[in-house]
Amino acid sequence: MSAELLNGREIAKDYRAGLQEQVEALKEKGITPNLTVVIVGNDGASLSYVKSKNKAAEKIGMASDIVHLEESATEEEVLDTVRRLNEDENVHGILVQVPLPKQVDENKVLEAIAPEKDVDGFSPINIGRLYTGQETFIPCTPLGIMELLKHTGSLEGKDVAVIGRSHIVGQPVAKLLTNENATVTLMHSRTKNMVEKLKDFDVVVSAVGKPGLVKGEDLKEGAIVIDVGNTVVDGKLVGDVDFDSAQEVASYITPVPGGVGPLTITMVLNNALIAAKRANNIE
Amino acid sequence: MSAELLNGREIAKDYRAGLQEQVEALKEKGITPNLTVVIVGNDGASLSYVKSKNKAAEKIGMASDIVHLEESATEEEVLDTVRRLNEDENVHGILVQVPLPKQVDENKVLEAIAPEKDVDGFSPINIGRLYTGQETFIPCTPLGIMELLKHTGSLEGKDVAVIGRSHIVGQPVAKLLTNENATVTLMHSRTKNMVEKLKDFDVVVSAVGKPGLVKGEDLKEGAIVIDVGNTVVDGKLVGDVDFDSAQEVASYITPVPGGVGPLTITMVLNNALIAAKRANNIE
Repeated sequence: MSAELLNGREIAKDYRAGLQEQVEALKEKGITPNLTVVIVGNDGASLSYVKSKNKAAEKIGMASDIVHLEESATEEEVLDTVRRLNEDENVHGILVQVPLPKQVDENKVLEAIAPEKDVDGFSPINIGRLYTGQETFIPCTPLGIMELLKHTGSLEGKDVAVIGRSHIVGQPVAKLLTNENATVTLMHSRTKNMVEKLKDFDVVVSAVGKPGLVKGEDLKEGAIVIDVGNTVVDGKLVGDVDFDSAQEVASYITPVPGGVGPLTITMVLNNALIAAKRANNIE
Repeated sequence: MSAELLNGREIAKDYRAGLQEQVEALKEKGITPNLTVVIVGNDGASLSYVKSKNKAAEKIGMASDIVHLEESATEEEVLDTVRRLNEDENVHGILVQVPLPKQVDENKVLEAIAPEKDVDGFSPINIGRLYTGQETFIPCTPLGIMELLKHTGSLEGKDVAVIGRSHIVGQPVAKLLTNENATVTLMHSRTKNMVEKLKDFDVVVSAVGKPGLVKGEDLKEGAIVIDVGNTVVDGKLVGDVDFDSAQEVASYITPVPGGVGPLTITMVLNNALIAAKRANNIE
């Protein structure tokens, strides 16, 4: 068999069209959703990522500002910026681009973001609310993965292997999958016979950053494969999955690039829109 | 084979002796660790549980107070009590006994406890810190389970089935096991062929409340079995595991009662001691 492609670009495009309509509806009520991104320093990859978020927000009609602090900014300066944005009524969503320079404690900064504006969902209080089933912001990559999986049918009772235990992707996506009544096995570098185990799983989500980790021969016939890996090899972005062999066996598969990536930024916008609605008590 | 018993009462007794020494050392410095328990209403089981915590704390030399509010207490009264205890320098650990009467929002109350006094580890910010690897309080039952498992050797690379996905036991113990480099599968009521799957696991932690759920014939030879179930049947406390058949197959097994239970209260005391130390900047 040859797998159906989960085309992240197309799915994201449709999703963003829906967001744009909602942004327009809010604007008619006099509310312009605003996503503000804080970046500290001049790391090229971070700057380009911040700009792409900014552009994506503006493209669907949101306001989006960038607060750019010097590489030498003190922790107190970063915290002051966050506090000022917390209090600014016109700002609905705050993103602090990580990593931060070493003189700034990342955990302290993330914890300082007002929970109702923490659209990345990285502040401990929002993570805790996720695990206790309360209203929160769900981190964007896991949310994007779940959106892709909606195109593959119900997850109820499915056996899912999540490879990679980061608190950005692996852990929260395991939680979201469990919420959908999937049975999740969280695998990682110390997992015994990992590759041999994969044959037992209906869905494999790989978020490691190790090209060629998952091959077609290791998958169950008809498995759904979500590739969150993104590693630059010879100037090209590649995932964890050997696409050519995997697509022969899988029922659905994401490409890299153009799979999970476009959904991540889409979910940043989604969360910023939710923040703007909640701030104005709009359902 | 016949399994070795993980005798929670004995392990707890040794552990509490260690705590008692540390409490005495603190008292010599003029610090008396204080655990204060808030109970609302007159539920018999809750009252008896609160009293047993109180007694256990005093037995190892801690101070322990009970704040008892009427069943009719308003949410604001409960929140005021918590805020007062947050500010009381003599109080190091605060426990709010759940469930609370229906007019009081449990999440709101748990979120109001100062994170540095939240010795149950149930406030969202502490849960979030657990998932992001920061200093926190780890919920007491999961912590007790990990203490029992220390008596069975390294968990690295072990395949563990955790049955039950509550945020009190299943989820956090899955996280702690993952931290120890075990590979965890989180099972629940919607898991497909759950019983048949158990044969693949080196460790089974059952936290469901369904007597007879796990039988010896379903276990892998030499499995480690932790029974967190506690259900009253004909006036007797029983776990999820059919003890007689399971102990024929397992290498280690906890009894019910006398397994996990005694460790849970021990870990409440452990966390209260940690809170007193942190409040006084003592390692």
